[in-house]
Amino acid sequence: MNFKGVYYICFVFLIGSLEASVGVDYTSKPDPKDGVATARWLASQNNWGVLSTISIELGGAPFGNVVSFSDGLPDKGCGIPYFYLTTLDPTARNALKDERASLTLSESPIGSCGKTDPENPTCAKLTLTGKLMLVTENTTEVEFAASALFSKHAEMKGWPQDHKFQFYKLDIEDIFLVDWFGGRKPMTLAQYLQPSNQQCELKKLW
Amino acid sequence: MNFKGVYYICFVFLIGSLEASVGVDYTSKPDPKDGVATARWLASQNNWGVLSTISIELGGAPFGNVVSFSDGLPDKGCGIPYFYLTTLDPTARNALKDERASLTLSESPIGSCGKTDPENPTCAKLTLTGKLMLVTENTTEVEFAASALFSKHAEMKGWPQDHKFQFYKLDIEDIFLVDWFGGRKPMTLAQYLQPSNQQCELKKLW
Repeated sequence: MNFKGVYYICFVFLIGSLEASVGVDYTSKPDPKDGVATARWLASQNNWGVLSTISIELGGAPFGNVVSFSDGLPDKGCGIPYFYLTTLDPTARNALKDERASLTLSESPIGSCGKTDPENPTCAKLTLTGKLMLVTENTTEVEFAASALFSKHAEMKGWPQDHKFQFYKLDIEDIFLVDWFGGRKPMTLAQYLQPSNQQCELKKLW
Repeated sequence: MNFKGVYYICFVFLIGSLEASVGVDYTSKPDPKDGVATARWLASQNNWGVLSTISIELGGAPFGNVVSFSDGLPDKGCGIPYFYLTTLDPTARNALKDERASLTLSESPIGSCGKTDPENPTCAKLTLTGKLMLVTENTTEVEFAASALFSKHAEMKGWPQDHKFQFYKLDIEDIFLVDWFGGRKPMTLAQYLQPSNQQCELKKLW
C-alpha cells in the first residue's frame, strides 16, 4: 500500500469516528434541558425564517424579511445559516451597507408545538444575531452553501439568472434561545457550534 | 318610539350596511392581483410572526423575536396588529427605548403555499414597519386588543400576572408586500386600512 492508500484509510477512519462519536441527529425534538441541541435542531429542521436587517429605505428601521435558508444537508445541519439572495430585494441591499442582522426561527412551522401558543416559552424560538455576509465566490464554502441550500430548496437552482442571486451567510455572534420557562437559555457560540459531524468537520478545514 | 330607539335603529342600520357593502372575508386566499386583500388576509389568518426591534443589548442590531399577535376577531381582521408582551422579554424593553419595529408574516404557516418555496415570490410575504407602542390602559382600544388577542390565543388569559404582560400595537407606517413576480406591490397605509367592517368602524370612533 502506498502513502496515498494509508492517507485515504486514515481519512475515512477519522471521519467515521467523528460521525460515530458525535452522532448529530436532528430528526426528533431534543430534551428542552439541552439548549444547544434544541437550538441546532431548530436551525436544521426549519427551512425558512425571518432575516432582519437595518433598512436603508426606512430610515434605519429594523426590517424583517421572509427568507429560505439552510445550515447543511437535510438532518445534518452545521448550525451556520446560508442564504440565496438578490439585491433586487431590500434585505441584501441593506446587508451590503450594514452587515448587522438576525435570523429568527420558531418551532411552530416544524409542527411539534401542538396547541401550545407560539409565544408560549415551551414552543421554542431562536434568534441568531451577527453579520450577514456574502460568501466568497469560487471557494469550497460556496460549494457547501450551494449543496446545503439546493438539497433543501430544489427550485432555487432554476431561479432566474438575471436576478443575480448570490450566497450569503450569517456570521453568528449571539444566540438567543427560549425553549422553556425562565427566560433565555445561556449559550456561547462555541457551545452552539460544538455538535459536529463529518460534513461540519470538513467545513472547518476551509 | 323615543330618540333613543331611533338612534339605536339608525346605528344598527349603519353598521349593517357597512358590513354588507364591504363584506370583509379573510377565510380564503385572495387573487394575488389584489394586493390589499392579500396583505389583510396575511394579517388576519396568521396568528404569529416575527417582531423586529432595535436591540439595546446587542449594540443596535436588528433583533427579530417570535410573537403571537392579532388584528381582530377570527376572520374579521382590521389590519392593525396587537401584541401581549412583557418587559421580561427583550422586544418590549427595546420598543420602550426605540419604537421603530416591523412585523413580518409569511403565507407558509397558513398552509396555502403547497410545495412552493417560502422565498418564492408567489408564496406571499408581508412586512409591516412602524412604531411599536403601548396601548393606553382603561380605554376602548385596550378592550379591543384584549378581545382580538384572547379570541385567537386563548391561553394568554392565564399567563402569569407577575410577568406584567401589557398590550402593544404596531402603528403602521410602511407596507411591504410581495405576492407575485415583479417585486413589492405598491400600497399606501390608507389603501391597506380601507377594507373595513362593523368592528373596524367602531374602532375608528375611539
